[in-house]
Amino acid sequence: MKIDFYTAVNRLREMENVLILLHHFPDGDTIGSGYALCRCLQQMGKQVKIQCFHKIAPKYDFITSIIETQNFEAESVVAVDVADLSLFGDLPKDLISNIDLCIDHHASNSLYAKETFLDSSAGANCELIYDIINELTGNVDVEIAKAIYTGIATDTGCFIFSNTSSKTHIIAAKLIDTGIDYADINRIMFDTKSRTRIMIEKEALDNMEFFYSNQCAVTYISNDFLDNIGASADEFEGISSIPRQIEGVIIGITIREKDKGIYKISVRTHDPVDASLFCSSFGGGGHLRAGGCEISGDLGTVRDKLVKKAEEFLK
Amino acid sequence: MKIDFYTAVNRLREMENVLILLHHFPDGDTIGSGYALCRCLQQMGKQVKIQCFHKIAPKYDFITSIIETQNFEAESVVAVDVADLSLFGDLPKDLISNIDLCIDHHASNSLYAKETFLDSSAGANCELIYDIINELTGNVDVEIAKAIYTGIATDTGCFIFSNTSSKTHIIAAKLIDTGIDYADINRIMFDTKSRTRIMIEKEALDNMEFFYSNQCAVTYISNDFLDNIGASADEFEGISSIPRQIEGVIIGITIREKDKGIYKISVRTHDPVDASLFCSSFGGGGHLRAGGCEISGDLGTVRDKLVKKAEEFLK
Repeated sequence: MKIDFYTAVNRLREMENVLILLHHFPDGDTIGSGYALCRCLQQMGKQVKIQCFHKIAPKYDFITSIIETQNFEAESVVAVDVADLSLFGDLPKDLISNIDLCIDHHASNSLYAKETFLDSSAGANCELIYDIINELTGNVDVEIAKAIYTGIATDTGCFIFSNTSSKTHIIAAKLIDTGIDYADINRIMFDTKSRTRIMIEKEALDNMEFFYSNQCAVTYISNDFLDNIGASADEFEGISSIPRQIEGVIIGITIREKDKGIYKISVRTHDPVDASLFCSSFGGGGHLRAGGCEISGDLGTVRDKLVKKAEEFLK
Repeated sequence: MKIDFYTAVNRLREMENVLILLHHFPDGDTIGSGYALCRCLQQMGKQVKIQCFHKIAPKYDFITSIIETQNFEAESVVAVDVADLSLFGDLPKDLISNIDLCIDHHASNSLYAKETFLDSSAGANCELIYDIINELTGNVDVEIAKAIYTGIATDTGCFIFSNTSSKTHIIAAKLIDTGIDYADINRIMFDTKSRTRIMIEKEALDNMEFFYSNQCAVTYISNDFLDNIGASADEFEGISSIPRQIEGVIIGITIREKDKGIYKISVRTHDPVDASLFCSSFGGGGHLRAGGCEISGDLGTVRDKLVKKAEEFLK
């Protein structure tokens, strides 16, 4: 059931011994949401702990190490930035039907929680958490501001994407005024790459092929390559946006070997090509400018199928 | 002579037949400043034209094509975002001593104009222009908002760098509320790379060497390579930040062949290494985290000198 902002705030006020759940492959927005809310509820005298069924990357240490979580038997369960049950990872069975409240900004939220406060106008879930904390205690201290800034910056690509609103900027202004070192957060989030990440980027560039007067760019990353360099899943994040970044490219395709003979395809497009429509030709789907699908076969055949389809869409 | 905000506003109010000058190798901030101010003064019934002694890149067409400049004999001359006479490029001699007003945010401004309004607390010069336009007409329309947003976004790395203030965000919020397609501006400014740019990035990664447990990374770009791929100067922008982006790197060095046997060195550092101090050992200078110098010799010797110096600084 959907609930409004003030009902959500009241539910949080009434809760004791709260368990906060994050989504798997945790990003800045779910981590920032969880830790900021955790600290706020603790400041209200409640016991709070956080669980994520997936390792949180060390680059978020500056958040996870300053906000301590406690040890107790949970009475209330809150999910933050989690659109569907499948996105928790290995959620224990007893929790599945016991999530009391979900706070989320994904329009696609499947309303799996007993009550859901959903506002899809927010660029980052942390914008909703900011409003909630202001209503609960009004105390956005430096630790909370760091967590919320991280969520907002990461989900909007540092204010670059169209999900940034004037409200996003106004919240950022207020967070900066708490004195946080936002430039250092941005350095960690956006300006630091592992050596294996650099190697993946190089591989993507080395394997890039162009078609149809450079309007279509296709690249390929093999499983063997990723295994050899010891890459982790989060180091692959954003690689599929590389082909489309190149001037003149309208359809950018990244082919990643998933298993022997099975390829995960990521498609990024510019106007007028509908990436979701493109991918649906292969049984996939997605959004207007970003889609995905899976194709089986040998690499050459898979690539030829994609390139041929691109020709249709570029006509 | 330095003047305050309201004096500068009054000077602009009194001017007729205005020539606005930009700096050479024009970036988003000088272009945005010039075109926004141009349109505002035109809306006040003045004739205004813009001059830049260097080609404006086609990616700024969305600004330069919507704001028309006029043809007339200039009476007043205003420079925007230009810190020194040397930064105009080929400035005609008769203009050198005839720049009436300079509006700038560089602390290093050499006060070459008759009067200078300088506010180095502004992340982008366009923040000052925004305030000035609000005072002059209060009319920040979509065209002006596009120009100002471009200046602010490009000079702050899209709100990523430490020169971003809470005021920067508040101005961005107001600009977004005019209805501009800021995400499209950001796509053009930050998410589009030419094929030659991609080739330079690849070359920088291919030539990268690591020293002292990866705390020092050094890369090299030759003149022959740049000539072969037909790279332009602005495509090299930002390349020198690549070595320092790599996790663990404290000193990132980019060696670029300038002329036969002369190398332009860019140094980027993280805490605690002072890039300016590093470069001053070779007769150069700069800021705390970004410096430059020139070294002559053969490539191997130049690299060895730099690597040896890095060892001292990492101790």
